[in-house]
Amino acid sequence: MSSLAAFAADLLAGRIKVIDLTQTLSPDIPVVSLPAEFGQCAPFRLEEISRYDSRGPDWYWNNFTCGEHTGTHFDAPVHWISGKDLPQNTTDTIPPEHFIAPACVIDCSAEARADPDFLLTVDTLQAWEASHGTIPARAWVLLRTEWSKRRGAVFVNLHQDGAHTPGPDADAIRFLFEQRDILGLGVETMSTDAGQAHRFTPPYPAHSTMHGRGRYGLQCLCNLDRLPPTGALIVSPPLKIRGGSGSPLRVLALVAA
Amino acid sequence: MSSLAAFAADLLAGRIKVIDLTQTLSPDIPVVSLPAEFGQCAPFRLEEISRYDSRGPDWYWNNFTCGEHTGTHFDAPVHWISGKDLPQNTTDTIPPEHFIAPACVIDCSAEARADPDFLLTVDTLQAWEASHGTIPARAWVLLRTEWSKRRGAVFVNLHQDGAHTPGPDADAIRFLFEQRDILGLGVETMSTDAGQAHRFTPPYPAHSTMHGRGRYGLQCLCNLDRLPPTGALIVSPPLKIRGGSGSPLRVLALVAA
Ligand SMILES: [Mn+2]
Ligand SMILES: [Mn+2]
Repeated sequence: MSSLAAFAADLLAGRIKVIDLTQTLSPDIPVVSLPAEFGQCAPFRLEEISRYDSRGPDWYWNNFTCGEHTGTHFDAPVHWISGKDLPQNTTDTIPPEHFIAPACVIDCSAEARADPDFLLTVDTLQAWEASHGTIPARAWVLLRTEWSKRRGAVFVNLHQDGAHTPGPDADAIRFLFEQRDILGLGVETMSTDAGQAHRFTPPYPAHSTMHGRGRYGLQCLCNLDRLPPTGALIVSPPLKIRGGSGSPLRVLALVAA
Repeated sequence: MSSLAAFAADLLAGRIKVIDLTQTLSPDIPVVSLPAEFGQCAPFRLEEISRYDSRGPDWYWNNFTCGEHTGTHFDAPVHWISGKDLPQNTTDTIPPEHFIAPACVIDCSAEARADPDFLLTVDTLQAWEASHGTIPARAWVLLRTEWSKRRGAVFVNLHQDGAHTPGPDADAIRFLFEQRDILGLGVETMSTDAGQAHRFTPPYPAHSTMHGRGRYGLQCLCNLDRLPPTGALIVSPPLKIRGGSGSPLRVLALVAA
């Protein structure tokens, strides 16, 4: 039996579990808010077309509006100026084999609970590797912070001086993308960069380095506490938007039961 | 090695191919047009927020609007009145393990080329089973018609008396969902029902029977000619829209190389 057939049989028999890492899309879901001089990401809005009524007696359906970066979403390289001119940099041109990949889950939940400005460092990554092995090339690194359990203003955590949310420091990003050549960084917060990353040198090191290397981001993930440190496979196929900089998507994890 | 690890290794090594079954979302993509008295599905529209300019110097992103049933999309049971009161009938409540499932691909491309009103019958399904084995429970049945190679008006094929596009007849639908208990029906056209299915007894047998049994539809698929008759796994996770009747999505197929 091929590995595909064995995998399919194990899925059907429940020996592989499917875990949903996606936040529900509704008008309540927070979106990133930039300084007023910049263009803004649309919140999720639903408009009912019909609901078994005169507008459509046998059917119910909706139209919707949102940003490419609303809710649990994917960042393509073209989202950042560093990835502007790369090949295969949009949601419709990325090779589809990149949409299924293994994950390394770094548990920083205690640190993020103690300090909303917690920064992931190379030391933390090397400590993780000492326990779980070298982070393989083309893997997702998922930063578990339990941030997804916050709601509303406490999730966004926006103050006068910007957002206060955890993320990687510039050295950790260089280590992951330059030394380890990972596929991308996934986080529970609204940005792959820390809330205060506009003050970093360089600013926004995750966006800048990651997308400049043609790699990807995942934001607003949840249920990372249900994943093992290694061994999960992440399914993360964005909408095929022509020239898209990203998209809301359904993110699933496959885990041995 | 578990089947999950073997599968992951084969994916990474290219021994399993990932085939994109998704049409690109752009303002050009046709949407279903109903009689004027009914509510209408929105076409796909993209609104640029910033593109490395004064609206956002380092980033490019868009907002977008569409219908839940625009482009390559998923139909949830709640879409049809027959599935209105079922449990787990919306895009946010369907069990995520239903988003990865095996496919049986029925090639009717010659028949659909000869007759745009071609109807899939029980005879055709039984002939397929004689060659490829019984269609298993919880599999997708994908109807290959090459319809995805048509563009614009020839794809929609709308005439005075309605659309002329291929689909299943009522007996074929009963066979698939009642005798075989399949997971859903996937098609290259804009509807799981034939274009003339409003005249059938009962009308819209695919929508009515399929969703009444809590099962799913996939529409506007492409690249079905790249799939084997059996052995492909379909990845089809819709957006997690609260109460959603469906959604545009990225559909991938996993196939042994
Ligand atoms: Mn983003
Ligand atoms: Mn539909």
